[in-house]
Amino acid sequence: MSLAQEHPMGELMAEMLERIRHQRPLIHHITNFVVMNDTANLTLALGALPVMAHAREEVADMVSMAGALVLNPGTLSPEWVEAMLIAGKRANELGVPIVLDPVGAGATRLRTESNLHLLEELDIAVRRGNPGEIGALAGIKGKVKGVESIGELDDPLEVARRMAKRFGATVAITGQLDLISDGERAIAVDNGHAMLKTITGTGCMATTAIAAFAAVEGDRLLAAAAGLACFGLAAELAAAGAKGPGSFKVALFDALHNLTAEQIAKGVKVCFVRS
Amino acid sequence: MSLAQEHPMGELMAEMLERIRHQRPLIHHITNFVVMNDTANLTLALGALPVMAHAREEVADMVSMAGALVLNPGTLSPEWVEAMLIAGKRANELGVPIVLDPVGAGATRLRTESNLHLLEELDIAVRRGNPGEIGALAGIKGKVKGVESIGELDDPLEVARRMAKRFGATVAITGQLDLISDGERAIAVDNGHAMLKTITGTGCMATTAIAAFAAVEGDRLLAAAAGLACFGLAAELAAAGAKGPGSFKVALFDALHNLTAEQIAKGVKVCFVRS
Amino acid sequence: MSLAQEHPMGELMAEMLERIRHQRPLIHHITNFVVMNDTANLTLALGALPVMAHAREEVADMVSMAGALVLNPGTLSPEWVEAMLIAGKRANELGVPIVLDPVGAGATRLRTESNLHLLEELDIAVRRGNPGEIGALAGIKGKVKGVESIGELDDPLEVARRMAKRFGATVAITGQLDLISDGERAIAVDNGHAMLKTITGTGCMATTAIAAFAAVEGDRLLAAAAGLACFGLAAELAAAGAKGPGSFKVALFDALHNLTAEQIAKGVKVCFVRS
Repeated sequence: MSLAQEHPMGELMAEMLERIRHQRPLIHHITNFVVMNDTANLTLALGALPVMAHAREEVADMVSMAGALVLNPGTLSPEWVEAMLIAGKRANELGVPIVLDPVGAGATRLRTESNLHLLEELDIAVRRGNPGEIGALAGIKGKVKGVESIGELDDPLEVARRMAKRFGATVAITGQLDLISDGERAIAVDNGHAMLKTITGTGCMATTAIAAFAAVEGDRLLAAAAGLACFGLAAELAAAGAKGPGSFKVALFDALHNLTAEQIAKGVKVCFVRS
Repeated sequence: MSLAQEHPMGELMAEMLERIRHQRPLIHHITNFVVMNDTANLTLALGALPVMAHAREEVADMVSMAGALVLNPGTLSPEWVEAMLIAGKRANELGVPIVLDPVGAGATRLRTESNLHLLEELDIAVRRGNPGEIGALAGIKGKVKGVESIGELDDPLEVARRMAKRFGATVAITGQLDLISDGERAIAVDNGHAMLKTITGTGCMATTAIAAFAAVEGDRLLAAAAGLACFGLAAELAAAGAKGPGSFKVALFDALHNLTAEQIAKGVKVCFVRS
Repeated sequence: MSLAQEHPMGELMAEMLERIRHQRPLIHHITNFVVMNDTANLTLALGALPVMAHAREEVADMVSMAGALVLNPGTLSPEWVEAMLIAGKRANELGVPIVLDPVGAGATRLRTESNLHLLEELDIAVRRGNPGEIGALAGIKGKVKGVESIGELDDPLEVARRMAKRFGATVAITGQLDLISDGERAIAVDNGHAMLKTITGTGCMATTAIAAFAAVEGDRLLAAAAGLACFGLAAELAAAGAKGPGSFKVALFDALHNLTAEQIAKGVKVCFVRS
């Protein structure tokens, strides 16, 4: 597979980002306490509007205004999973795409089972996880230490493809190289930077980026690829001047907010791969 | 109305900030998960002391030490609203001023009803919201997308005045121009910067700033104006060197912490307006 | 007592930090909402891996993978204290060291009683608090305003020693000078910077640093001293170029991430003191 810059793909992604900035879709998050602030700011940096709401009494109302719904059980409890189901079912009725981030699946039984339950009960548009999390949900022994993936999958593309077919969802496995499959087609994204591992919640932020693109683009494979490519590209730009994780995080929000069509056209490293 | 710099008002506000730094009032927050860290840091940057406590078992104890109580149901659930009522009733008994931020009122029934319930049950000193939120509570069809106001009120000053009279609270409607009414008098504040819209929680931060001033100043109209003017001025100073939302947020805390009497006297744009 | 730089101690601490970076222990936090993001990032900056998990259904599973457990009831509720007990009992069975941060003990009865309950039910490896919090738990009238200590203990070293003996835990009282006792030996740490008081959660961050060192070093007195010294040293380095609390916080994460053996050997100010 070639990961040379593909200008037409870059132009398409720049146009999708422009749509986010113009339409300002509401991204309803039911997410973990650790990343609420960062993912709200990431949503704004992309040009969309964030809302965090988890009360069972209001999630169905809230999601009816949303362009996409993020479900992220990173600090889950049974009550929150219940709220995710209520919101998710309403989202499915209304055609609002759901993006699921199965944080820490594989680490504890509660996490694995809750994520499988969400996958079974809801029609998930895109699922993004690290190799350990996706592996655990695929029934492969994924290695997860807390919320961190350790070790790699033998054939991540095949795992993504099989999972996508089984649950009818687009699956993104993120790591040094991101691989996305909708069961038929597959895309590889080679953007990103090692510094992303030095701050917490960058996986959750990538999920939010996917949701923002899924709110304006019906082709979920392309939306997921655009979210990961733009987020990864912003990380590359941010790392250039960073002195450590603190200044990297500051620069990441700046870079994403300032991302231009030219930077995207020139910088995204995306290509279709044989599924 | 003229918004020319009014030096006497600036001097008064500088003196109020000096009181905060000297007395270090405790600002008890029952607030949303998204902004807890930012509003705690904002409280410190102003010179006051923050505490976040929501357990029904301790809120009455905690508020008895406080100089002001912030109620912000931005990620509300019925249990938290119950804690707000317990804390609020104790605050009323003790004469601790309550500042309410009706985040997302108008977006869902739970939010609108919970906020109206707090307004009815408690004696609120200052209520700060965007036009959509205040409009929703006034029974006008406020337009709220998640927690974001879209569209404007026809006559915000009249809405603020009427709401202030009805509930006996000072009402601040914030936007490009902030308007504050206590039912009799009204003040306009023209500080602030467009970059405030690029990061999450700046409305909540403004509310915290009002609470810090209300803890040291009994004239609630002036306290609210001072909080909004100083916060807005810090935003103007921060925006000068910012490259995007990440660096803007960093600079905002720096600017607020370093705010001098001279900067305030020279920079606040505040004037009384006909109510 | 002399607080001249003690090179052998600095070399030992640098070697301990190297162990963290090499082993990457998982630090399981059950902590408060305000500092979750910051303490997760602090854990990463030290080279360890963070996980935040509080559901009663999973905490026993999660702690079994951990190198240390942080219990921080800073925004406590009875349900969370129950989860802390479940996790703590499992940690004790497995020999996973527990580090307790009794945030705001002394401020409300719920906080004081919950912290005493945790101390009585669990074998705590290290307890870190400010003079007010530790004083309150020692039955001395500690002065606590929210979560802030006001006033000093007459003889903090003696309080730490007595508390350490009574509960069999290492006790660290942090302030301008940090004092740590395991009941027999005592260490003073003179690192740190006044700017730490300008941002929220720096006490909680210090606790996380202690936990990361306790995960790789069995001598709890040394682990606590190393955590406080390295964190304090990073604060000194960060303060050098900071313009206020915003830029100080950014630089703190950068400095901790970049901390070298040379900086530690040269910069830590640690010595044994007569207990």
